[in-house]
Amino acid sequence: MAMSEFEIIRRNFASRGIDRGDVVLGIGDDGAVVRMPSGCDLVTVVDTLVAGVHFPHETRPEDVGHKALAVNLSDVAAMGAVPAWATLALTLPHADEAWLSAFARGFFGLAQRYEVQLVGGDTTHGPLTVTVQIQGWVHSGRAVRRSGARPGDVIYLTGAVGDAGLALRAWQQQQALSATDGEYLFSRLHRPIPRCREGEALSGEVSAMVDVSDGLAADLGHILEASGVGATLNLHSIPLSPSFVAVTGSGKYYMNEAERLRLALSAGDDYELCFTAPEAQCRRVEDIFSNFSCGCHAIGIIETAPGLRLRQADGTLLSLERNGYEHFAQEPGNAGN
Amino acid sequence: MAMSEFEIIRRNFASRGIDRGDVVLGIGDDGAVVRMPSGCDLVTVVDTLVAGVHFPHETRPEDVGHKALAVNLSDVAAMGAVPAWATLALTLPHADEAWLSAFARGFFGLAQRYEVQLVGGDTTHGPLTVTVQIQGWVHSGRAVRRSGARPGDVIYLTGAVGDAGLALRAWQQQQALSATDGEYLFSRLHRPIPRCREGEALSGEVSAMVDVSDGLAADLGHILEASGVGATLNLHSIPLSPSFVAVTGSGKYYMNEAERLRLALSAGDDYELCFTAPEAQCRRVEDIFSNFSCGCHAIGIIETAPGLRLRQADGTLLSLERNGYEHFAQEPGNAGN
Repeated sequence: MAMSEFEIIRRNFASRGIDRGDVVLGIGDDGAVVRMPSGCDLVTVVDTLVAGVHFPHETRPEDVGHKALAVNLSDVAAMGAVPAWATLALTLPHADEAWLSAFARGFFGLAQRYEVQLVGGDTTHGPLTVTVQIQGWVHSGRAVRRSGARPGDVIYLTGAVGDAGLALRAWQQQQALSATDGEYLFSRLHRPIPRCREGEALSGEVSAMVDVSDGLAADLGHILEASGVGATLNLHSIPLSPSFVAVTGSGKYYMNEAERLRLALSAGDDYELCFTAPEAQCRRVEDIFSNFSCGCHAIGIIETAPGLRLRQADGTLLSLERNGYEHFAQEPGNAGN
Repeated sequence: MAMSEFEIIRRNFASRGIDRGDVVLGIGDDGAVVRMPSGCDLVTVVDTLVAGVHFPHETRPEDVGHKALAVNLSDVAAMGAVPAWATLALTLPHADEAWLSAFARGFFGLAQRYEVQLVGGDTTHGPLTVTVQIQGWVHSGRAVRRSGARPGDVIYLTGAVGDAGLALRAWQQQQALSATDGEYLFSRLHRPIPRCREGEALSGEVSAMVDVSDGLAADLGHILEASGVGATLNLHSIPLSPSFVAVTGSGKYYMNEAERLRLALSAGDDYELCFTAPEAQCRRVEDIFSNFSCGCHAIGIIETAPGLRLRQADGTLLSLERNGYEHFAQEPGNAGN
């Protein structure tokens, strides 16, 4: 990169945001040096967003900055870990000052909220690609894996699902939503708030956890596969937001009950937490969530029989004809059996 | 990505290479969990290689895999740290099995050599971009920064410089080199061996260190800037390899002494270590390098006066008319004053 571009990047990224006491050496050397708390294990996540693949090219740069960090924070939360330090590998067609400044605003706005410090990075020329890596910690032995679900465990979901998928549909069809519903739904798509505090609080308390990024059915599928179990979801218990219900209840986005549930179960980008807990632990889970406004719903039960069964209010099973992701559709036992 | 692509990636990356005892949870969950040794600080580096920018599109995939890890290991070495765990964010136009398998061969071949375990990653669709991030550790307080050089310190360089720059020139001009020189020089360009053991051994022993990735003059410039000092290099002490000397001594790549030194000082991709040490420490540095075959040469001295002076054998100063990187050329005091 040319001098002026280095300057622009330095101005937008170096010494921005918070200044953690455990950072020995931040941006500007060959590597970053940080101090881990004792008695803890190091947790690392990494996720890449590619323009035109993971977000539309016309996405506002502040939303790209926010979301690139959010999707990684969500993975940290799903481990039950506390996020602390981040690195950013940014590939840009050119160093556009306005774009970078807006991107940094989105990135650091969210970083500040969870006291995450940017400690390193690399900026290169090329097609717009954003790779964020976050490090954090969890008390030794208390990381929550995907593989710990056991038959009889209750399946929980934070917040609500389907909002981001509905917003993406509206964005692609360029059809207007009411001001209130539009603001809510688009913020769920473009500026998701990862469930960091919730994830931390669940560390060592629950048997398995995953964040909902590929769609609830697909991500719960990861728990089932890793744990060697199956599950039944009670579809009438799947939490849907008031905006989701309103927008799909009539008008251009009207859907019948089955269509609505298929969207909520298969659309990605929700960044909620889906976790399982033995029944004896349910009271504890409810206590934990009394501190959090997002809420938490029991949506089903882990079973021995492999596969995911979707039980409707009348007792019949729903078929997920079309899943959000091909790799899930091809897994055995998930096609609405 | 489609099912088949996930499968290809899993086959090539999951459970490959070594299995470290300190990895609690590797690839396959939302994040990786590892255990840090006590009394140590965590060191993190990240570097991105973009096809067509950092390596020619026609580079062999095993060389891309090797080099993406090597450039990051070199940064870890420059901190005086021990590498341990890596993540890989790979953006690919499509999941070509032959390409991925060769890439993985190059990546894991080098990872094995330094006992680095791949603990996480992300594979996405898009233009070929490779971001590697490595974590390692250093005993608390013993990381080597760029900012510790003091007037009177001796400047050292491992190995030799200029080989990769000469090889890149030969590659671009598609002119044949002799078998021996060609093999050596192209391996320096495509399969650099980072100075990991050397860097670890220098932890806490030297005053400043950097790895030579942008060219010796530019990277030493980073030490000078961070330390607020200047330097004089004795150009007759700059180590050049026998192949470099042979190829530039006659024939199509003939260069006079000044041209040869300009190339050696400004070409990038050498991945040697450049470091400084107080004179009282020089005996210790020589002792350390008696264990390493790459060798280590005293090439100059840190001075109070800002800027980098390049002293030729006859006592006159050489001007680096054209530096490898624009950002360096514009820094004050480095234009051969």
